[in-house]
Amino acid sequence: MNTIFVHRNGQTEQTTRIDRAWLNPTSGVYLWVDLAAPSIPEALILSETFNFHPLAVEDARSAIQYPKAEAYDGYLYVILHAIDPHKGERGFGTHDVDFFLGPNYLVTVHDGHSPSIAELRDHATRNVKILGEGPVSLLHRMVDAMVDSYRPAVEKLEDRIDGIEEAVLGRPDPALSRRILQAKREVASLRRVVTPQRDVIARLARREFVDISTEMSFRFRDVYDHLVRIADDALIFQDRLTGILDAHLSNISNQLNQVMKVLAVVATIFMPLTLLTGIYGMNVSLPHLPGGDAAQFWWLTGISAAVVIAMLAAFRRMRWI
Amino acid sequence: MNTIFVHRNGQTEQTTRIDRAWLNPTSGVYLWVDLAAPSIPEALILSETFNFHPLAVEDARSAIQYPKAEAYDGYLYVILHAIDPHKGERGFGTHDVDFFLGPNYLVTVHDGHSPSIAELRDHATRNVKILGEGPVSLLHRMVDAMVDSYRPAVEKLEDRIDGIEEAVLGRPDPALSRRILQAKREVASLRRVVTPQRDVIARLARREFVDISTEMSFRFRDVYDHLVRIADDALIFQDRLTGILDAHLSNISNQLNQVMKVLAVVATIFMPLTLLTGIYGMNVSLPHLPGGDAAQFWWLTGISAAVVIAMLAAFRRMRWI
Amino acid sequence: MNTIFVHRNGQTEQTTRIDRAWLNPTSGVYLWVDLAAPSIPEALILSETFNFHPLAVEDARSAIQYPKAEAYDGYLYVILHAIDPHKGERGFGTHDVDFFLGPNYLVTVHDGHSPSIAELRDHATRNVKILGEGPVSLLHRMVDAMVDSYRPAVEKLEDRIDGIEEAVLGRPDPALSRRILQAKREVASLRRVVTPQRDVIARLARREFVDISTEMSFRFRDVYDHLVRIADDALIFQDRLTGILDAHLSNISNQLNQVMKVLAVVATIFMPLTLLTGIYGMNVSLPHLPGGDAAQFWWLTGISAAVVIAMLAAFRRMRWI
Amino acid sequence: MNTIFVHRNGQTEQTTRIDRAWLNPTSGVYLWVDLAAPSIPEALILSETFNFHPLAVEDARSAIQYPKAEAYDGYLYVILHAIDPHKGERGFGTHDVDFFLGPNYLVTVHDGHSPSIAELRDHATRNVKILGEGPVSLLHRMVDAMVDSYRPAVEKLEDRIDGIEEAVLGRPDPALSRRILQAKREVASLRRVVTPQRDVIARLARREFVDISTEMSFRFRDVYDHLVRIADDALIFQDRLTGILDAHLSNISNQLNQVMKVLAVVATIFMPLTLLTGIYGMNVSLPHLPGGDAAQFWWLTGISAAVVIAMLAAFRRMRWI
Amino acid sequence: MNTIFVHRNGQTEQTTRIDRAWLNPTSGVYLWVDLAAPSIPEALILSETFNFHPLAVEDARSAIQYPKAEAYDGYLYVILHAIDPHKGERGFGTHDVDFFLGPNYLVTVHDGHSPSIAELRDHATRNVKILGEGPVSLLHRMVDAMVDSYRPAVEKLEDRIDGIEEAVLGRPDPALSRRILQAKREVASLRRVVTPQRDVIARLARREFVDISTEMSFRFRDVYDHLVRIADDALIFQDRLTGILDAHLSNISNQLNQVMKVLAVVATIFMPLTLLTGIYGMNVSLPHLPGGDAAQFWWLTGISAAVVIAMLAAFRRMRWI
Repeated sequence: MNTIFVHRNGQTEQTTRIDRAWLNPTSGVYLWVDLAAPSIPEALILSETFNFHPLAVEDARSAIQYPKAEAYDGYLYVILHAIDPHKGERGFGTHDVDFFLGPNYLVTVHDGHSPSIAELRDHATRNVKILGEGPVSLLHRMVDAMVDSYRPAVEKLEDRIDGIEEAVLGRPDPALSRRILQAKREVASLRRVVTPQRDVIARLARREFVDISTEMSFRFRDVYDHLVRIADDALIFQDRLTGILDAHLSNISNQLNQVMKVLAVVATIFMPLTLLTGIYGMNVSLPHLPGGDAAQFWWLTGISAAVVIAMLAAFRRMRWI
Repeated sequence: MNTIFVHRNGQTEQTTRIDRAWLNPTSGVYLWVDLAAPSIPEALILSETFNFHPLAVEDARSAIQYPKAEAYDGYLYVILHAIDPHKGERGFGTHDVDFFLGPNYLVTVHDGHSPSIAELRDHATRNVKILGEGPVSLLHRMVDAMVDSYRPAVEKLEDRIDGIEEAVLGRPDPALSRRILQAKREVASLRRVVTPQRDVIARLARREFVDISTEMSFRFRDVYDHLVRIADDALIFQDRLTGILDAHLSNISNQLNQVMKVLAVVATIFMPLTLLTGIYGMNVSLPHLPGGDAAQFWWLTGISAAVVIAMLAAFRRMRWI
Repeated sequence: MNTIFVHRNGQTEQTTRIDRAWLNPTSGVYLWVDLAAPSIPEALILSETFNFHPLAVEDARSAIQYPKAEAYDGYLYVILHAIDPHKGERGFGTHDVDFFLGPNYLVTVHDGHSPSIAELRDHATRNVKILGEGPVSLLHRMVDAMVDSYRPAVEKLEDRIDGIEEAVLGRPDPALSRRILQAKREVASLRRVVTPQRDVIARLARREFVDISTEMSFRFRDVYDHLVRIADDALIFQDRLTGILDAHLSNISNQLNQVMKVLAVVATIFMPLTLLTGIYGMNVSLPHLPGGDAAQFWWLTGISAAVVIAMLAAFRRMRWI
Repeated sequence: MNTIFVHRNGQTEQTTRIDRAWLNPTSGVYLWVDLAAPSIPEALILSETFNFHPLAVEDARSAIQYPKAEAYDGYLYVILHAIDPHKGERGFGTHDVDFFLGPNYLVTVHDGHSPSIAELRDHATRNVKILGEGPVSLLHRMVDAMVDSYRPAVEKLEDRIDGIEEAVLGRPDPALSRRILQAKREVASLRRVVTPQRDVIARLARREFVDISTEMSFRFRDVYDHLVRIADDALIFQDRLTGILDAHLSNISNQLNQVMKVLAVVATIFMPLTLLTGIYGMNVSLPHLPGGDAAQFWWLTGISAAVVIAMLAAFRRMRWI
Repeated sequence: MNTIFVHRNGQTEQTTRIDRAWLNPTSGVYLWVDLAAPSIPEALILSETFNFHPLAVEDARSAIQYPKAEAYDGYLYVILHAIDPHKGERGFGTHDVDFFLGPNYLVTVHDGHSPSIAELRDHATRNVKILGEGPVSLLHRMVDAMVDSYRPAVEKLEDRIDGIEEAVLGRPDPALSRRILQAKREVASLRRVVTPQRDVIARLARREFVDISTEMSFRFRDVYDHLVRIADDALIFQDRLTGILDAHLSNISNQLNQVMKVLAVVATIFMPLTLLTGIYGMNVSLPHLPGGDAAQFWWLTGISAAVVIAMLAAFRRMRWI
């Protein structure tokens, strides 16, 4: 669905077709064309009205592209990623948003799921300022909203890592290695999404491209700071997960030690006693211990008790129990 | 086998010998010479007709070379790798394709297995545009097709890694370490093949070399984006395999813990009971437990049951069972 | 709470309102405005009196920001972190201190917990030199004090790592993996806090920004050296903890070996003896060993002793005991 | 032993003393002085005849130096390493070859073991071209031969790593960790030898130093490609060995699991049966099972068989057997 | 203790006070002032006579500083580290040596333990050349001697690592992990000491600072080569220790496997035999095996032998024994 906003003489109105005269940078007109999940004929506007380069149009129409900023003759083509609340069973779900930024127009192409663009579209005619500040400011508004939408997802991920850490410091649980593996994947996908966007925004903030005013560069620097922070968080998460995995593995080893100590203690105590009963079960005449027949049993009980106590003392000295 | 295409006066025709006048950049003629698995006399065209540098000719004739782009006097020598469906039992099978790009000619040298070049050769005379756009455009067509042919191999590799991951999250299987090792090797060979090609294409896109038009640089930038994506995928695969190996090792340890717990539980339960039966098997007069002869057995059964229940409770408290 | 110091005619006095004429760089007046946990009306001074950029003001008012130095038109905006003795249950507790450095003024914004700024505030009117040397020198004094306050925290951390190392070289203790994990987190948070500050101070020392004299650049270089040292210590701590974890894991494995050897030795010694007693306990007529009935027992004892001695010798040869 | 070749008037002859006039770059004379394991008086030629810098002479005379290229006033001093077939019980055995490259002379210093230099020396007077192309070409010939001599050693190493990999994918063998450790050392020493040489040759190919013609730079670029390839192989070997070690460790763990499962299965099956026989060996009157005296045994056999079958089923369900 | 050497008119003499006229670069006088563990009044010479910057003086007087080179107005301030034979129970013991290098003077500050400076001090008046070559040459002499003194310590460390490697390839020993941890610490401290010094000397060799002649830059390049070599050795040591640790851990695992195999073999052989004796010890009438009463025993012995032989064959097939 194509939505066209035109701002002239201090008024913003929605329209259905574009007057080619508006595309003249000196026309004093600001234009925002939003293509939400455009059909094939709707997308023709990119190549026919605006004459964008076929490769850029192809990228804008294809589903998954990497964040990048490319200067073409007379306009800038930017791809960014927004968090998509509808995706994301594996890692962070994102969708592409494509921007064509010309001297007096902005064309946005996306799959129609972006809440921040939808909101701007709702307000565009009511709030004159939104288009009146020009296309660069409009681009900044969208990018700022998109970057802000990462925060809740990052916090949810942090909560999960906190949970895993708590679990690891508690009782070793075989399911933890699966949870660590999955959290690692999410952190990796967060990093892969954020890092190239940070670099794209940095180039905007450094004013590498088209006419960006000092004031606008300050604002993009602010967005850049947010992305730096998210990228840094992702790095911290990764380090923490590495530490958590190490602790998990050392916990498993410790538990194995614990189990083996129990086994060794039990075997070491019962095997000699069982041997003793075996000896007195033999059909062989044994040397008589002092005392009568009844005393034999108590002798054996005494010897057994002495053996057990000696062994327990030895285990205690080795700190096994 | 040498195939020679010449484009002049808007016509493309296949020919068997090269008129030296055509090599003059101002002749208005475009030339494509394709050497598929050339015999020694066929390869003489490189040194005799084109006067290419002996070292470049030697590289073009040798089997395994690294991707690179080297500027010689008046022409550019490029080596790229194409996926070879006939190779590849270990890692990614590729073969070299060598390009000599002159101002108005392109010479390609390969082992004759490249489907993308074969297709172009079939179409060259029928579709005038193929040669009519000049040798740089022809180079781009081949490179683009070669890079596209990586995609299926990358997806097959991704499927294998998905399979390994699924298996690792399931039951630990000794064969997994072999599968992980092999997948790691394939990912490493993919990276080794893609990374230098990406750098070569980046240099073409940046117009470091001979006369490449802005339009052509856009197209090479597009190819470059594809290679960046594949290189990035390879990096993701590598990270995933590292995570998978960690999970696999922690699974093995967990399973060992499980086995040892079973052993410790069994030994801890049966050893005391066996001792008890040993005691009552001794040829020694034992203290009589209350009740008649028949009651002795039930006394012992009761004591044994109490011991077993106490132990099971202890194991439950330690979360072993 | 806002505290305003003004230095003119060689005198420093505290005042309650700012004469706009003072902000003229040529007025010969030095100004220090300290905002300690400012209320919303108190913070208005930033935007209304000084006309600082809204984004910088927003950063100054928000709780957690990354260390950075940003040049705005006519002033420099710097964020640094000071150790906060009131925080810090997890990792290093720090709080932001924000500086706006103009040609003849310094504005500081913080949460009021910084002891080094509090001290300067106490001395500002008594010691004329503090403001008399100008705002850059004042900035240096604060930064120097803040960086010095890291030292005790770093030393406490080193002591803890020494303790862990000592413990690891002693007896393996399951609680160690938790202590190592926590120390790693603290070291990581130290690095994250120190590294960006080091880079900010380096830029001041290199005189990238506003009018910093050679003398002042020497002083900032000195502060920079301190931060380099702390960052280097953090790196050393990290390496040591990695080594400690390796040693811990190899200790756990060694202890498991020890336990298993005890178990194997005990089982290997007692199982044959128990078998022997089992044989002589069978209700089967056994071949008579030489000698009378009484000799049978001593024969068996001798055989057992021989078996045990042979086994102990074998274990000794394998260095198990 | 010093060997002196002089090339003038299209003739190469061997001589015993150097005419100082020859050292004049405009003399039209090419000179090659080869010092093979020179005695102290023989080495004086370096400082007395050629006036080389004392530090360079000291380096040339000392046994082990790092590959480097240093420009002195009027000549270039290069150290490279050749594979030494006489060394090498630990890692790659190499020896230094030192080159002093002047405008019209080349001085080589080595320990006399280099087969590639020996060969050139044999051919120098017979083949006029060898010296006739000038000292840079002579240097290239030697360097090319030296680099080619790495190939067999690299292939032998690859064969060894293939063998280790095969062994690791087979049956775990304690000796493997020793073989992996040794192969790692060899790979590391290969990398240490090749990497600095690659950088030295790259500088020659980039024509950073003395008068190197375009043609010569092409040839050095070719040598550089060979070294890049070897360095790349070394990196691949290293990665493979890391993967092999991981697989080896996971194999050991798997085998331990296997052993423990056997032990646990055996203990779990025999302990209950032994308990049963113990019960019926007690000197206590047991409840009579239905049937006569003879039936008792078959009852017990039946119970035992049932227990064993149930356990085997449980183990099968847990996939232990 | 301050020692002052003055060189004028081709003579070097020791003196007790400095004529301020000597500090004039055009005075033709060379001056060396050595402060060995100076008392507070002795150190005043730095600030009062030479007017060095207070921050540099503070650094020179404090105990532990990082190697660095800082250009001040008219002089260069360099900190290097020398091996200190009196320190070093943990890692490499070093002490600071501080140099102030002016156009015609050198001031050295150290703790008086440096043997290389002590030696120079002894020779300074006797050997006119030592001061006569100027302060840069004097600096080079000291730096060269200091760097040479690292060699024995590096070799001792290499011997220790060789010892650990030998031990690891032999019998696994729990004490090895402690030895590896300690060697790792020493290597890390060697790297930390050498790397910054290498960078400082590199800057001297590149003639970044005050008037250093080409000849002197050659000499510093030589010192730089030595430091590069030591830094490289440290890197090699680190890699070797990583490999050694891996081999150690895999040895421990192998030994555990060995122990467990013994245990499993013993248990698997004796448990069935013990069961058999248990069966024949039951107070239950057993089916009679063919033959008389005496034959029963031989039957059982035969069955047992068959069981044992079958098991040994199975273990042999699994390569456990």
